[in-house]
Amino acid sequence: MRQNPARRAALLDAAIEVLAAEGSRGLTLRAVDAKAQVPVGTCSNYFANRAELLRQIMERTRERLTPDPAEVAEALAAPSSPELVAQFLRDVYRRMDADRSSYLAMMELRLEGVRRPELGAELNRSFRVALEENIRFHLDAGLPGDRVDVTLLYLAVHGMIVDDLTVPDVLAGSAGELIDELCRRLLPRGAAENA
Amino acid sequence: MRQNPARRAALLDAAIEVLAAEGSRGLTLRAVDAKAQVPVGTCSNYFANRAELLRQIMERTRERLTPDPAEVAEALAAPSSPELVAQFLRDVYRRMDADRSSYLAMMELRLEGVRRPELGAELNRSFRVALEENIRFHLDAGLPGDRVDVTLLYLAVHGMIVDDLTVPDVLAGSAGELIDELCRRLLPRGAAENA
Repeated sequence: MRQNPARRAALLDAAIEVLAAEGSRGLTLRAVDAKAQVPVGTCSNYFANRAELLRQIMERTRERLTPDPAEVAEALAAPSSPELVAQFLRDVYRRMDADRSSYLAMMELRLEGVRRPELGAELNRSFRVALEENIRFHLDAGLPGDRVDVTLLYLAVHGMIVDDLTVPDVLAGSAGELIDELCRRLLPRGAAENA
Repeated sequence: MRQNPARRAALLDAAIEVLAAEGSRGLTLRAVDAKAQVPVGTCSNYFANRAELLRQIMERTRERLTPDPAEVAEALAAPSSPELVAQFLRDVYRRMDADRSSYLAMMELRLEGVRRPELGAELNRSFRVALEENIRFHLDAGLPGDRVDVTLLYLAVHGMIVDDLTVPDVLAGSAGELIDELCRRLLPRGAAENA
């Protein structure tokens, strides 16, 4: 069967909306066809089964939430400091906020992965690689803080995003300031900056 | 109808197991009856509807995850320090680890709350109150750090628990050490202690 990459992406985007709106139990190939407004059966031509659809949704959300490399390179031109790290984390937050469906879909997948070992294994691998890449990026860029700091930043921002998506009144819009405070309080300030 | 508090608690505990194992869509009054091994219809005698069941599950998980006040008082006898805060957070973590179903059920409820505004409002209120209580406890006990620090600790441990429950390979058993490092790096060390 002929497959069209744009249509595949459109099906995955529809699947993300279904997951975010209906939860994992609402995600059927037929529901994705309906959401994407394509003929019944289209989705099953693109994904061998539900497990394959879930795996590709995971990759697609990752793709949607990844920043533009040119913007990252431009931001890195600024001097290294806790404030620069805060700016990167605020960007992570902003991307989530502009694409809440992707993050909600990922949370649904995480819970589904607890019940489906095969999906759970994929998620474990994917999140592990993502954290390692974050740590490597941070250290290679000479940003302040070691691998433990980067891990702690990741965890705090992750907790913040989960709360913002599910119980937004808890932080009540203070996420940006909390990110600034976290970086200011946690990260070492280099000698060069203080000079 | 006569209601029995022990049976109500047993039904809620069964509901927590159903939620953790099957997700929110699997949670029906009938599934809870089956899990609790009680006659069909028992659950509907205790809970007027599914919304009421969800609300009481939320309270029950909170109850199950709350520490014994006597243990808290005993721990507070130790001198105030970042290490003492780490010990409290390790206890939060240990309680979650000993009762993963409660925390998973709460994550299912959070996602369900995104889709059901009434439940979402309850969750917002409940988590907000819980964070305020944590902050008040911390400040009243004279533990190191201000309300921003307590909020950041809460967020990082929350992110840690979500990862431990859903993608455990990411932290691979290092949660305890990360908690120690977080407290050591984030919290101010009092003059008294250094003396």
